[in-house]
Amino acid sequence: MAAIELHYWPTIQGRGEFVRLLLEEAGAEYVDGARRKGGIAAMMRFLDGEQRGALPFAAPFVKVGDAVVSQTANILDFLAPRLGLVPDDETLRAEASQIGLTIADFVGEIHDTHHPIAGSLYYEDQKKEAKRRARAFVKERMPKYLGWLEDVLARNRKSEGRWLVGRDRTYVDLSAFQVVEGLRYAFPNAMARLERKIPRLVALHDRVAEQPRIAAYLKSERRLPFNQEGIFRRYPELDAPAPRRRSGRARKAGR
Amino acid sequence: MAAIELHYWPTIQGRGEFVRLLLEEAGAEYVDGARRKGGIAAMMRFLDGEQRGALPFAAPFVKVGDAVVSQTANILDFLAPRLGLVPDDETLRAEASQIGLTIADFVGEIHDTHHPIAGSLYYEDQKKEAKRRARAFVKERMPKYLGWLEDVLARNRKSEGRWLVGRDRTYVDLSAFQVVEGLRYAFPNAMARLERKIPRLVALHDRVAEQPRIAAYLKSERRLPFNQEGIFRRYPELDAPAPRRRSGRARKAGR
Repeated sequence: MAAIELHYWPTIQGRGEFVRLLLEEAGAEYVDGARRKGGIAAMMRFLDGEQRGALPFAAPFVKVGDAVVSQTANILDFLAPRLGLVPDDETLRAEASQIGLTIADFVGEIHDTHHPIAGSLYYEDQKKEAKRRARAFVKERMPKYLGWLEDVLARNRKSEGRWLVGRDRTYVDLSAFQVVEGLRYAFPNAMARLERKIPRLVALHDRVAEQPRIAAYLKSERRLPFNQEGIFRRYPELDAPAPRRRSGRARKAGR
Repeated sequence: MAAIELHYWPTIQGRGEFVRLLLEEAGAEYVDGARRKGGIAAMMRFLDGEQRGALPFAAPFVKVGDAVVSQTANILDFLAPRLGLVPDDETLRAEASQIGLTIADFVGEIHDTHHPIAGSLYYEDQKKEAKRRARAFVKERMPKYLGWLEDVLARNRKSEGRWLVGRDRTYVDLSAFQVVEGLRYAFPNAMARLERKIPRLVALHDRVAEQPRIAAYLKSERRLPFNQEGIFRRYPELDAPAPRRRSGRARKAGR
């Protein structure tokens, strides 16, 4: 397989992180293009249509030989069979893809909690709308998506609920890990409440974090920290209220 | 190929329409499940996890033999090779998929113009935010997506700019047709201004509409009309202002 060039913004995890996790878990040789000198200009030449191959609408995209492949879920679906991170069986591959796309929708909704009006406006200029959208997100959408992932795990008898598709780990397990990580960063209060209801997904998260290559990656400087420029942002005003804590007296009385 | 069951809401075009267009153009035998008696209940059994196979997060989904396949772009990518509506070449297939996914993102943004806060709220309860989001959509996003499709056509020398991918029509051409149709319905003023700048895409729309099977489908009762329950809705307050018309005097003077 030809060398893989990843093109994505160099200072955020963002959507590119789903691709990085796959490449890292596969032990693939790849270049994270935009982190190199001149890399952003090189990426822009693709986005501006000055390179051959398919025209990406946005980053991330990868170049593998002559192929230019964009859209996160499509990149993952393109690379995973070549890197052994999805079964060859086409029904299972389509199942992985539908999970990957549902996670992509989830990620889009997570983004829109802080940008409900326009990506071109600052958060501060849509904060009021963001609070309203985030309230509905935390109450309705976040439990729905997380509960669906939990159900998918529960139904997957082939792996005894350990992995989302088939018998072994696939790229969508890595993506589910990333969503749990991101939600813990962005919505710590809401996640603290919800995690009791999604034990399989939390266990999946931990299982992914313990994979040797992922563990090494997470400790490396290649893993960027979450920050307020990415998809997952920590705005306390968008999170659920902090969980109520029992008073010292109630706790002492064991109530 | 096993018979295809499509499951989708029976009274709207919605996301299901992208699948219907593919099935119609292919001349495939399919059942539009939810339009039959008891069909919605049958669909709900899949969504409620009472059926075997992959668990869909939402409709549309298709059942083909034992496979249950959801997420519109994934359904199209799964069916198109079986129905001759995408090239076998895997780079071209990935290119079609990235266009399909970008159209899916576009459709999501179109939906969110009337539901920027929550799908669970009525339009009337988020009308103020909808106006603000739609203003940014019409000014920034709609020209960006349509211009990108125009660029993709211009770059496709294999078809001399007639089709989006490869030499012949593929499922993404049908999807692009549907987006143009929908935008003409939902944003007639904004589209009237933009169409001058996207001649290839308008020609593609017309070319798709003239395909004999599509033309027959569009005239049939299987093609539902656009309405205010679907993704494309006509709320004049969300559209651009009507184009300025020259006064009678100015017209007479030929200015």
